[in-house]
Amino acid sequence: MTTIDLNSDLGEGYGAWKMGDDTAMLEIVSSANIACGFHAGDPLGILATVTQAATRGVAVGAHVSYPDRVGFGRRPMDVTSAELTADVIYQIGALQGLAAAAGTRVTYVKPHGALYNTIANDARQADAVIAALREIDPGLILMGLAGAPILQRAQDAGLATVAEAFGDRAYTPDGQLVSRREKGAVLHDPDAVAARMVRLATEGVIEAIDGSTLTLTADSICVHGDSSGAVDMARRIREDLIAAGVAVTSFVPGAR
Amino acid sequence: MTTIDLNSDLGEGYGAWKMGDDTAMLEIVSSANIACGFHAGDPLGILATVTQAATRGVAVGAHVSYPDRVGFGRRPMDVTSAELTADVIYQIGALQGLAAAAGTRVTYVKPHGALYNTIANDARQADAVIAALREIDPGLILMGLAGAPILQRAQDAGLATVAEAFGDRAYTPDGQLVSRREKGAVLHDPDAVAARMVRLATEGVIEAIDGSTLTLTADSICVHGDSSGAVDMARRIREDLIAAGVAVTSFVPGAR
Amino acid sequence: MTTIDLNSDLGEGYGAWKMGDDTAMLEIVSSANIACGFHAGDPLGILATVTQAATRGVAVGAHVSYPDRVGFGRRPMDVTSAELTADVIYQIGALQGLAAAAGTRVTYVKPHGALYNTIANDARQADAVIAALREIDPGLILMGLAGAPILQRAQDAGLATVAEAFGDRAYTPDGQLVSRREKGAVLHDPDAVAARMVRLATEGVIEAIDGSTLTLTADSICVHGDSSGAVDMARRIREDLIAAGVAVTSFVPGAR
Amino acid sequence: MTTIDLNSDLGEGYGAWKMGDDTAMLEIVSSANIACGFHAGDPLGILATVTQAATRGVAVGAHVSYPDRVGFGRRPMDVTSAELTADVIYQIGALQGLAAAAGTRVTYVKPHGALYNTIANDARQADAVIAALREIDPGLILMGLAGAPILQRAQDAGLATVAEAFGDRAYTPDGQLVSRREKGAVLHDPDAVAARMVRLATEGVIEAIDGSTLTLTADSICVHGDSSGAVDMARRIREDLIAAGVAVTSFVPGAR
Repeated sequence: MTTIDLNSDLGEGYGAWKMGDDTAMLEIVSSANIACGFHAGDPLGILATVTQAATRGVAVGAHVSYPDRVGFGRRPMDVTSAELTADVIYQIGALQGLAAAAGTRVTYVKPHGALYNTIANDARQADAVIAALREIDPGLILMGLAGAPILQRAQDAGLATVAEAFGDRAYTPDGQLVSRREKGAVLHDPDAVAARMVRLATEGVIEAIDGSTLTLTADSICVHGDSSGAVDMARRIREDLIAAGVAVTSFVPGAR
Repeated sequence: MTTIDLNSDLGEGYGAWKMGDDTAMLEIVSSANIACGFHAGDPLGILATVTQAATRGVAVGAHVSYPDRVGFGRRPMDVTSAELTADVIYQIGALQGLAAAAGTRVTYVKPHGALYNTIANDARQADAVIAALREIDPGLILMGLAGAPILQRAQDAGLATVAEAFGDRAYTPDGQLVSRREKGAVLHDPDAVAARMVRLATEGVIEAIDGSTLTLTADSICVHGDSSGAVDMARRIREDLIAAGVAVTSFVPGAR
Repeated sequence: MTTIDLNSDLGEGYGAWKMGDDTAMLEIVSSANIACGFHAGDPLGILATVTQAATRGVAVGAHVSYPDRVGFGRRPMDVTSAELTADVIYQIGALQGLAAAAGTRVTYVKPHGALYNTIANDARQADAVIAALREIDPGLILMGLAGAPILQRAQDAGLATVAEAFGDRAYTPDGQLVSRREKGAVLHDPDAVAARMVRLATEGVIEAIDGSTLTLTADSICVHGDSSGAVDMARRIREDLIAAGVAVTSFVPGAR
Repeated sequence: MTTIDLNSDLGEGYGAWKMGDDTAMLEIVSSANIACGFHAGDPLGILATVTQAATRGVAVGAHVSYPDRVGFGRRPMDVTSAELTADVIYQIGALQGLAAAAGTRVTYVKPHGALYNTIANDARQADAVIAALREIDPGLILMGLAGAPILQRAQDAGLATVAEAFGDRAYTPDGQLVSRREKGAVLHDPDAVAARMVRLATEGVIEAIDGSTLTLTADSICVHGDSSGAVDMARRIREDLIAAGVAVTSFVPGAR
């Protein structure tokens, strides 16, 4: 049977500030990328989200970031490799601690925002992140952009990887995400998005922005929960996948 | 044979800012209270210190704090219990991650600064810290002020504890530290300080500020390394203890 | 003609996190307490709010706080007087800079959250805040809790003051705010709240939580905008005041 | 008579962490670039430094930075123009507030670290900084790298500028600073450095790293105070300049 994982970025509030509907999304996804405090997430809020994830059997991943809270981790930073490795270890460890308190554990790592985009192609920063996982726990799985060099690089270093596709993003014919600054980069029609993800999961292809057909192997689909429309779209993707005979389940054995 | 532990606050730099001579102190102490990022310590600096501690077999403790970097964790804060518990778990977890990367592990927790002083006597905040240790790892040892209620409270909750005395601080006749705002609160004479600590380790008594003799049971002595004079005093305490037949060794089995 | 000011806490987002509907509230209030970065507010967000306030002629006040972003400035902190004075000057200056860029200026200061509550009665911290205003600009007006000692203290030091009442808070018979931890502390019925504020503005009295009538002299009423219900209540207070013949206008000459 | 300014980066402590010897440097320099809190500097520490500068008649400049305290502002960040403009205004305003409290005022702005290097050549970020100065106070002078495009760009926008040379840095034949990663980038011999600066001030030339002679027009020389050796070198530069008949005085009228 065909299976695919659904993941979402959660725990992204900070103190009095809320973001997204974690409770709703934890009913939809099989894997939760949980903020670790560097771009979002205060300890009490993270603990609440990781506890909910544990209750529902959702796999817990560390959503690690550059140290840039005011910029929500979205701004490229030219950090040294040693700084980046230590920053990633620190964040994973902090989430591991909160996960242990919640009766679960961190099984994978998904870099966030500008760090995610940078390491997709930048070998130096990619290696610094890979080193962090190997040093704290070589059993951690790295989630990265489907088709990007980071995945092979991590595998060569001995890490298991998960290739991620984006439900609501347009792709170039060569498999890159269309930049958010370009027209048509973000897709808004739930029908079309769900149909794309069903085709991706069942046929391994996705239509690129120029109408050509792109082969893309993805183990997980990223869905968003930052608005009620986004939650609805995520739910629709899940329902249509299941209706098409695809099992929505985490890549982590034993998780939901 | 009489044994006692020597501990010191380390890893207290932050980015470009340095504090103390960790390398020198790691030759003197048997236990290192390592900052976790809330009052001091950036990930790369913490990793450097924990790596050095691992190399020397020094026990690693989490020096957890209120979230107050600009105040160095020295300002009392009226945080909620839930916030405090989550903050302490987060910090312990972060240090556990860096310790794992360095090939060692966190075996104890020593609250820092204003948090240390507050929980010595404040039951609510004490319970929040105790809950943190129990939730992340009930095998963690809590280090607290010798003679303070926190220690019994932690034991009642099932935690092992270590009672700490201060080498360079004056005591009231009833076993409290003399406030730093009072005259004579801090002792500066290495000869006198070392002699006090030898007497404490061998006889279990210490002379109070009024000249009376105070019974004080301590498992560990806190020494400082924030100036070259402080490092010299710490080294002198260690040497005089050993000369008096006291074994300076950590309370953590297997550590130095 | 009777006049009263309406004020609200604005600019309380932080980077990607939003809070409240500043645009809606700036149509309702005559004075905007704008966050200065210590409990909320990033420079770009503050600039957006202060620019909107300038366009509408709303008076701009500095909503200064303890340095506690994760706690939203709601947690009492035992800072030194020197720290507090410098922190308040820094925040006022930062807002003055952004106000200058927006073509307006800072005319008053309203301490936020735990700092507000603390200085209402704590003379030491009150004096540190008063010193800050005197040192950066003795023409700044201090907004404080109607009936609290801070106002007289500030006047004695040569500052002009504005006494503030809270639309949605219950009062004790002696003029204190009922603690939020008590039942009935926060009022939710817009009809009742608006009627209370009309009576306060026109008769100078307010009904206390025990049903007794309390004399309270207030120059400004604090309204909230953190939910659509709150915005509606604020609008209702404004409309009912005007309908009762009260002019809603800032205490700052020349402002709306 | 030939005159030149000496400037130094001051106020770079943070809370309990100290950096540099501001007191010593304020006897040597005519202009003080004072940290504004984004890479270094807490309000109380900044106030202490700006107060000392005021006492000595040293000109006060805002040493503005990217928001990166843990990286000391040394890491390039790809911020948006709107963010950068607001961040710079905020920092200048905060320092203006503290300067007013100290009885002086901010007369110039020197971007720090990675921001300084980026805007030397990057037109977009340069324009964002220039916009900040124009919006908060078009009378502010911008200090930038002698020979870099930023200076002309700022002049074209109506700002006065000051061209800065570095005493202890090697130059390429075309007037760029040799990267710190290259051998010989930083000069350590006080005799040689002082002689270079005298020649620069009196002849308007400096020897490049390849031995060629470079024409360089500089209004100010940057000296450092982060070690006792650095302070000695700064003092030596001052003394040798004066001995050569150069007046060391600020570019700000009325300052020392």
